[in-house]
Amino acid sequence: MKLVTYKKNNEQRLGILYNDFIFDLQNSGRKLKLKLPSTMKEFLEGENATMRLAKKVFTEIKKGNIKSELKLKSVKLLSPVPNPTSMRDGYAFRQHVETARRNRGVPMIPEFDQYPVFYFTNHNAVFGEGIIEVEDDHLQQLDFELECAIVIGRKGKNIPAEKADSYIAGYMIMNDWSARVLQMEEMKLNLGPAKGKDFATSLGPWLVTVDELEPYKISTPYGNKYDVKMIARHNGKQISDGNLKDMNWTFAELIERASYGVTLYPGDVIGSGTVGTGCYLELNGTWALEAKSKGEEFKPIWLQDGDEMELEITGLGVLRNKIKKSKVSRSILAKKKLVNSNTD
Amino acid sequence: MKLVTYKKNNEQRLGILYNDFIFDLQNSGRKLKLKLPSTMKEFLEGENATMRLAKKVFTEIKKGNIKSELKLKSVKLLSPVPNPTSMRDGYAFRQHVETARRNRGVPMIPEFDQYPVFYFTNHNAVFGEGIIEVEDDHLQQLDFELECAIVIGRKGKNIPAEKADSYIAGYMIMNDWSARVLQMEEMKLNLGPAKGKDFATSLGPWLVTVDELEPYKISTPYGNKYDVKMIARHNGKQISDGNLKDMNWTFAELIERASYGVTLYPGDVIGSGTVGTGCYLELNGTWALEAKSKGEEFKPIWLQDGDEMELEITGLGVLRNKIKKSKVSRSILAKKKLVNSNTD
Repeated sequence: MKLVTYKKNNEQRLGILYNDFIFDLQNSGRKLKLKLPSTMKEFLEGENATMRLAKKVFTEIKKGNIKSELKLKSVKLLSPVPNPTSMRDGYAFRQHVETARRNRGVPMIPEFDQYPVFYFTNHNAVFGEGIIEVEDDHLQQLDFELECAIVIGRKGKNIPAEKADSYIAGYMIMNDWSARVLQMEEMKLNLGPAKGKDFATSLGPWLVTVDELEPYKISTPYGNKYDVKMIARHNGKQISDGNLKDMNWTFAELIERASYGVTLYPGDVIGSGTVGTGCYLELNGTWALEAKSKGEEFKPIWLQDGDEMELEITGLGVLRNKIKKSKVSRSILAKKKLVNSNTD
Repeated sequence: MKLVTYKKNNEQRLGILYNDFIFDLQNSGRKLKLKLPSTMKEFLEGENATMRLAKKVFTEIKKGNIKSELKLKSVKLLSPVPNPTSMRDGYAFRQHVETARRNRGVPMIPEFDQYPVFYFTNHNAVFGEGIIEVEDDHLQQLDFELECAIVIGRKGKNIPAEKADSYIAGYMIMNDWSARVLQMEEMKLNLGPAKGKDFATSLGPWLVTVDELEPYKISTPYGNKYDVKMIARHNGKQISDGNLKDMNWTFAELIERASYGVTLYPGDVIGSGTVGTGCYLELNGTWALEAKSKGEEFKPIWLQDGDEMELEITGLGVLRNKIKKSKVSRSILAKKKLVNSNTD
């Protein structure tokens, strides 16, 4: 089942996407005398009970017993989870970490294999497909990051990896937009990335429930992996080529760690971290090394105002965004010298 | 005005604290035919208009025109902001950073003076005064952090420092509980602190509105500072001694940076970062250096099961917490070797 959040008459609604038509979940439920919510927030808070009812509705939709005239193309899609209750991002693909470090001439961090780290990012700056508005400083080495995200569908604490997959409500594509100059500057202070990544994260285009990914499933003692291709296109040209099965830490292991001594809530989003080849920071490093070995010049590539990014994951759709510079764009980088004097 | 969130008949209520009595805000408002909310969330969402109404109520309370029989000591106080919409923590005191780095034998980071960094932490694990339940791994070098926090009271984006103080609804004491073994391990992967600090942050005991701190105010071109003492006591013994005026970055500057290209919402909490001498990580380092210079042995001090921490800031009250080991306490540190084998 594919769930979408869309805008109709200036109201956010939750719907099921089927054969390019959107079926309003609440209204469709009414036809079956089932009480279903109108928002993703309430849907997730309803946990397994609401999921079961929604699947009943979906069964009737597939049978043709519920009709819709609302075409997918006629509505504005928002992030399927428009208001995550929190957002963590993992670091689960070793290839990405290893390649980026090789490119910088530094060795792999052995602790990568010991625990699945994550950081918290801004759950209040989440977007779906469409325009991503950015400021001046974000366009200083603006990058995408090709990731997969899950959303938690059941409240829980101290969840062991073996049981953690049952806490996942569904999967989405995630683009963890990154302003590399801001990020590299702040990371010198060892608090991790924050300002470099807080302005936008795209999720979507829809939330795909776990059952739909069954054909791609690889079971492991540490939770499920999925054999689905991950691709990125920049202005139509493919630049990334990965696979979700290459996660060295499963989502189940990320949930185990995140929930250690901490309650996870329905609506919490967890990203996988960047897949190998899934961002320009890594690709530029690789291309620079290749150019150097051939004695060629290399100019790094970053995203520009007006550029389009398409992220595609088998079974999860295509997440399309376009970068747009804010009309009132300003810089805090330029302000550095002023605030620098404020030290007493 | 001091605002408290308290529990009565299993319901969360918002009240004004005055002379050791709590005046339920909504009910007190009704007596004046003013519509006021019952929760801090709605109170903050009401922005300046609701703040003005609450201050009218407070004026009548002070005049003795509204009575209360609810004694402060008779209720369970929660975090005054029980559900922050997000939580950032700054790094604003140079003394803390400088001392900690000196103790580790590494030089100061020059970028500290160039921009006021912050990171996102877990806004869904916020507590008020009272018991803080922790797991096994949290008790591996468990630490407190003495901080001050503000809560945002007006929605805004791209807020310049000069105007940022007007976005602050009030101030609270903050204890950023830190599990140093978890934190030091994860920080090797450069994503900053997350798991080491996600299990608990204490805020309280009440939210003090900005006007109450007027007597301590120091105006600067970069926003206000406050000359208020910051003290910590561990099992009754004073161990920290700082002052909020020593913030090298003001809250206004933190808001400017946090709001760059990002919308801040009423309910967003921002911590100052640890004041100098405001945690055992720093103190242990200092004490170890002192012991070494005298040729003495030194054993670092950390918080233990049953320990009490009191944080006090002039004008903001005393925030008291007690550490309690979870009955079902378990370890993820111990699991390391098992998950370590999961690398393909």
